[in-house]
Amino acid sequence: MARVPLGDYLLDRLCELGIEHVFGVPGDYNLGFLDRILEHRKLTWIGNCNELNAAYAADGYARRRGAAALATTFGVGELSAVNGIAGSYAEQVPVLAITGMPATDVVAAGKPVHHTLADGNYDHFGRMFQEVTVARETLTPENPTAQIDRLLRAMWHGKRPAHLNFPADLVTLPVPAPDAPLLATEERPADSAGLAQFLAHVAELLADAESATLLAGYQIDRYGLTGALRTLLEAGAPIRACVLGSARGTVAENAPYFAGVYVGAFSGKETRAAVEDADLLILAGAKATDTVTGGFTHSFAPLRTVQLFEGHATVGHARYEGISLSNALAGLTALFSSAGHLRPPAPAAVPGRHRQAEEGPLTQNSLWSRIESFLRPGEVLLAEQGTSFFAAQDITLPEDGTLIAQPLWGSIGYTLPATLGAQLAVPDKRCVLAIGDGSLQLTAQALGTMARYGAAPVVIVVNNDGYTVERAIHGATAPYNDIAAWDYTALPAAFGAADRSVCVRATNGEELDAALTEARRNPDKLVLIEAVLDRDDSPELLSAICRRFAEQNNY
Amino acid sequence: MARVPLGDYLLDRLCELGIEHVFGVPGDYNLGFLDRILEHRKLTWIGNCNELNAAYAADGYARRRGAAALATTFGVGELSAVNGIAGSYAEQVPVLAITGMPATDVVAAGKPVHHTLADGNYDHFGRMFQEVTVARETLTPENPTAQIDRLLRAMWHGKRPAHLNFPADLVTLPVPAPDAPLLATEERPADSAGLAQFLAHVAELLADAESATLLAGYQIDRYGLTGALRTLLEAGAPIRACVLGSARGTVAENAPYFAGVYVGAFSGKETRAAVEDADLLILAGAKATDTVTGGFTHSFAPLRTVQLFEGHATVGHARYEGISLSNALAGLTALFSSAGHLRPPAPAAVPGRHRQAEEGPLTQNSLWSRIESFLRPGEVLLAEQGTSFFAAQDITLPEDGTLIAQPLWGSIGYTLPATLGAQLAVPDKRCVLAIGDGSLQLTAQALGTMARYGAAPVVIVVNNDGYTVERAIHGATAPYNDIAAWDYTALPAAFGAADRSVCVRATNGEELDAALTEARRNPDKLVLIEAVLDRDDSPELLSAICRRFAEQNNY
Repeated sequence: MARVPLGDYLLDRLCELGIEHVFGVPGDYNLGFLDRILEHRKLTWIGNCNELNAAYAADGYARRRGAAALATTFGVGELSAVNGIAGSYAEQVPVLAITGMPATDVVAAGKPVHHTLADGNYDHFGRMFQEVTVARETLTPENPTAQIDRLLRAMWHGKRPAHLNFPADLVTLPVPAPDAPLLATEERPADSAGLAQFLAHVAELLADAESATLLAGYQIDRYGLTGALRTLLEAGAPIRACVLGSARGTVAENAPYFAGVYVGAFSGKETRAAVEDADLLILAGAKATDTVTGGFTHSFAPLRTVQLFEGHATVGHARYEGISLSNALAGLTALFSSAGHLRPPAPAAVPGRHRQAEEGPLTQNSLWSRIESFLRPGEVLLAEQGTSFFAAQDITLPEDGTLIAQPLWGSIGYTLPATLGAQLAVPDKRCVLAIGDGSLQLTAQALGTMARYGAAPVVIVVNNDGYTVERAIHGATAPYNDIAAWDYTALPAAFGAADRSVCVRATNGEELDAALTEARRNPDKLVLIEAVLDRDDSPELLSAICRRFAEQNNY
Repeated sequence: MARVPLGDYLLDRLCELGIEHVFGVPGDYNLGFLDRILEHRKLTWIGNCNELNAAYAADGYARRRGAAALATTFGVGELSAVNGIAGSYAEQVPVLAITGMPATDVVAAGKPVHHTLADGNYDHFGRMFQEVTVARETLTPENPTAQIDRLLRAMWHGKRPAHLNFPADLVTLPVPAPDAPLLATEERPADSAGLAQFLAHVAELLADAESATLLAGYQIDRYGLTGALRTLLEAGAPIRACVLGSARGTVAENAPYFAGVYVGAFSGKETRAAVEDADLLILAGAKATDTVTGGFTHSFAPLRTVQLFEGHATVGHARYEGISLSNALAGLTALFSSAGHLRPPAPAAVPGRHRQAEEGPLTQNSLWSRIESFLRPGEVLLAEQGTSFFAAQDITLPEDGTLIAQPLWGSIGYTLPATLGAQLAVPDKRCVLAIGDGSLQLTAQALGTMARYGAAPVVIVVNNDGYTVERAIHGATAPYNDIAAWDYTALPAAFGAADRSVCVRATNGEELDAALTEARRNPDKLVLIEAVLDRDDSPELLSAICRRFAEQNNY
């Protein structure tokens, strides 16, 4: 039987999940593992300036590739990255956090080596990761390939990150090469008999309904079910579909059945009616967290609502265990293919494209109408969890477009490295990021890393002089919401990317138009556009939600 | 009885510990608490670009002030900072990590709000902090002032960080103002009867000894015992003193009894003899971790060694519990004041100042001889855990000088924000940092924060084209040890500090001399000096230790 170094075994398995890049930072406990990456015929090492940036990049990569891998050193490296992994956990993004650990004999002897607490206990950090991962392993010489397979399967099926401690001395341990695919058979348990009962229960509601609406959440994307959802929506019945802000792109926004982005009480009138007044409402993988429900202002009539999640489903107050999202969608597709009795809805007003691309000083309105026009089919929009995310809810995505954001975890700075990751994941589709100045300052180094590795997204820095989202919640003029005035267009050159970047500052519509034209003229360069806005110009949705958040905090 | 908002109660207590600045990043769950800081008459808010930088800055501040405070938001903020707090734990630096938490009723209802895992469990992150803090609390309305006092006392006496969850709604809760000092009385339990027995045991060894050497570790500094140690060393007996690299500044390096920095087998010949051949060796708060012992090449004869730690002491193989470091030093001072029988040692060669400040292209030698000459009494040297830390072991510190570094935790990037913190802690003493290019890239934003808040240290960026410390361990020419070539002298301007900084690039001795002269001419400006070195020019000590680390990792 062919034998391979244990490090290669892991890397081969990662390739099976569609991974072609590994993100991270070197440290002395992982250098041997990084050697294996350099020598691997299918993998590319992406060295980041710091570990949090690497974790965010891995998350962005996984959102377009299905999975990602992060390699750091023990203690200092993994803990710098843990907020990124926590975000991946919260938002169900499978990222494997590989920690280069001191050698087995060092650990067995409890030596007080660097990057430890010098207390002889090497499990502190693994326990910390346990809070934000679906599974964890510390490799041992006995049966490490089984440990790796178990971990990767848990990550893949759970759509959550996992943590792997890889002792430095085991990287070159010879092990049998994989002799069967990691995901050879469908390993998810067959759905229980409950599936039939669940579908019968839905059929009863459907029979009495005159209207039905499906509201899609992010799990549709995570479980790779965007196609299955489309099949359901196009099965023949006159059903309407809305999405939560966390699930943009899972429903084609140019389809006749698309009825907008639902944000609770702050939804457009027709969108709100479509969701809240439907005789039958199907929530598909949709978690009602505060940011995507207008601060819990949503209203779903319990007895008319069906909820689908990976692993369970509900009809009214009845809960059915063991139902996979995939089987639920397939079952509902069958039901809806013979639901011709539903009343065809009036055509919905097309959301988005309703604002003028005004001239004069830039406003949120004129910025976003231009971003909407700029995006081409299949391109990926990323919007930072500040003004940008909320403003993005008002535009229509292009055909096959996607929005990457982090509405639940909401870690500012996330989207800049995530853009690096997403751009490497889909090299033939341009990524376009909108990020505020305050957020950019957390992770600015990623601009240099993009250029270094030939990633050429369009990064729009929305310079509104501070933490506008915080100002909208509390402390509108408080100094803690101020930031230093950086020279944003000087950053790529300072980060060594002068010749691989184009930087433009835009203060009005004409300048922004010119900058965007320049961006299209330079498809192979990182394009940084500083869009200068008034500091109190908040998207309406942001202002409304921030008032709710202020109440939530007793401000 | 006077009543104050609970937030003010905490801030007043922090002031009692000598804290005048709070570091952090705003987030919606801590904005109300930040209001209290802004309104506090003694405290200044230092807004950092990201939370890890803030945590490092707090650590640097605490190392010169005795304690520090960090304020972040829930989840995303605290987890971004946790690596900094772990470093403070490993190296015994008391930093209070204050997390702005969702309001009590939100938590009680288990609402899936942003910055949580949306699972109704708000204790995940507190549990993570439990691994790297001495104590933690989540404030409740019942008796929050007692919780605060308990936490701060645990932090102060344990010299370790602590974690405080502060729900947003409790910040303005009226509570009785403090009616007694936090540290009114000596709360450490009186030493047990073991102290007398311990001292008698040491006296036996001392009576038979002809030579005695004390080796100081970092706990001397952390417990504020540098003065007490000096009293012991100058009690009259001809004792010699060495320091570990983690404890520079705890022994006056111009004193006649100073015998150098001990680094195991890689020590200077006389230093090694002083430690290893002494008839009586006293290890004072000295932890023998790998980086400061030349990779465990130290040699302490068990039966001739006395060890003092906070809380216990040993004589040979006998262990005495309940002995404070302070009482142990006082007891030994009495013993040594009547130890005239010891043989006076031959005068030691003065360490440092033994290299020429060569002209021509810069080398580690010529760089560090110039740093040695540059430093003035009382100034603070910071050295990043790469080439800089090891090179710094070869120079003599100025009178009352200190070296801040992180030899155990060794998180690259730490010293840049730590310089911000240290400089704010000792505004009348200039801080001088030496940091490699690879390390600077992790936390570069701190340059802008320094200038923003008027901190004016001298930052020497040792540009040796990549991770030289990693190259010395493994992968000398591997691409993972390469970094992007930044334009370092352009950074302060890009970070908005053009008019509050002086930036100079130096490639040879003459240019470095001119740059250092310029630094003295601009005491109120951030001075960034890019010192360009050959990429394989490692300090000898680094090369030797890195060979040990490579062995330790089985490379």
